[in-house]
Amino acid sequence: MRVMGVDPGLTRCGLSLVEGGSGRTVTALDVDVIRTPADLDLARRLLIISEAAEYWLDTHQPSVVAVERVFSQHNVRTAMGTAQAGGVIALAAARRGITVAFHTPSEVKAAVTGNGSADKAQVTAMVTRILRMQQAPTPADAADALALAICHCWRAPMMARMAQAEALAAEQKRRYEAKLKEQRKAGAKR
Amino acid sequence: MRVMGVDPGLTRCGLSLVEGGSGRTVTALDVDVIRTPADLDLARRLLIISEAAEYWLDTHQPSVVAVERVFSQHNVRTAMGTAQAGGVIALAAARRGITVAFHTPSEVKAAVTGNGSADKAQVTAMVTRILRMQQAPTPADAADALALAICHCWRAPMMARMAQAEALAAEQKRRYEAKLKEQRKAGAKR
Repeated sequence: MRVMGVDPGLTRCGLSLVEGGSGRTVTALDVDVIRTPADLDLARRLLIISEAAEYWLDTHQPSVVAVERVFSQHNVRTAMGTAQAGGVIALAAARRGITVAFHTPSEVKAAVTGNGSADKAQVTAMVTRILRMQQAPTPADAADALALAICHCWRAPMMARMAQAEALAAEQKRRYEAKLKEQRKAGAKR
Repeated sequence: MRVMGVDPGLTRCGLSLVEGGSGRTVTALDVDVIRTPADLDLARRLLIISEAAEYWLDTHQPSVVAVERVFSQHNVRTAMGTAQAGGVIALAAARRGITVAFHTPSEVKAAVTGNGSADKAQVTAMVTRILRMQQAPTPADAADALALAICHCWRAPMMARMAQAEALAAEQKRRYEAKLKEQRKAGAKR
């Protein structure tokens, strides 16, 4: 599974490409940080991010795009820009029929470090170790984008099993209700 | 000036087209509300909104797109979706080289009703009157999209004059500083 990880942001947007193998083997294939100048207007900044993401999607052809789910941060203005950057990348993926998955920051931290409230330094250290990189990825946005892709590689099989279990439960419920209805009908006839 | 007004939203996104004439004359040319099902995933919802906006942009060729600037609302999740919907429309406009302007809800209310904290009913009533419509536009998102376009038609000349004044002031400052530097140089030589 080839996963493109996205740490969305207007000023700095981290993009990564990770190949998930069997078990917990993951390999980093590429990582980059897209920057847009703060004095440019919002629409043009989104255009720069969108074009960079489209180039990545077309070049690397990931099977899935994993984006950080944004919650309200300390700074509302920043959170909006982050949500919009993530939105235009999700749009570019949807245009190409590529699945988009969202993971919260604590899901990513928990997957990579085992601790949902780990700090940036811990995440970077674990990402460096997991991917067997010779140097820690910088800036933090690059490490976060890699962490997101790793998180997806490891969570995806579990998420798929859960979806399967839910579908099975729904099917069983549907059958049980149909049977119940039939029995009631039969009871009413008697 | 042909203005496309956008009241962004994931569930309902209002789009309008208003022609601004001389003085305060404004004419409604079109209005619609794009809906996306809440059970669809975010990326696909953004794709539906983006495609509808692109169709509007290509069909109506507005000279400017006016989008509501989103602030944190009561519901953070809703605010994020709203910001993302506005973001993908701003992106579609930027792709076509069309200027995107943002106005806050209170700027829109103040422009249309004269009161920055007017309620939805007042905004709808004034929009109906200003555009000489026989029926009030529904739902509220349609009225809001029209109000946004009207707001832009009326604020744009003032915003242009302010930008001109600022540019003039910056140019005068630059000249004054250059003169000052020259005088200091001359003083040092003496």
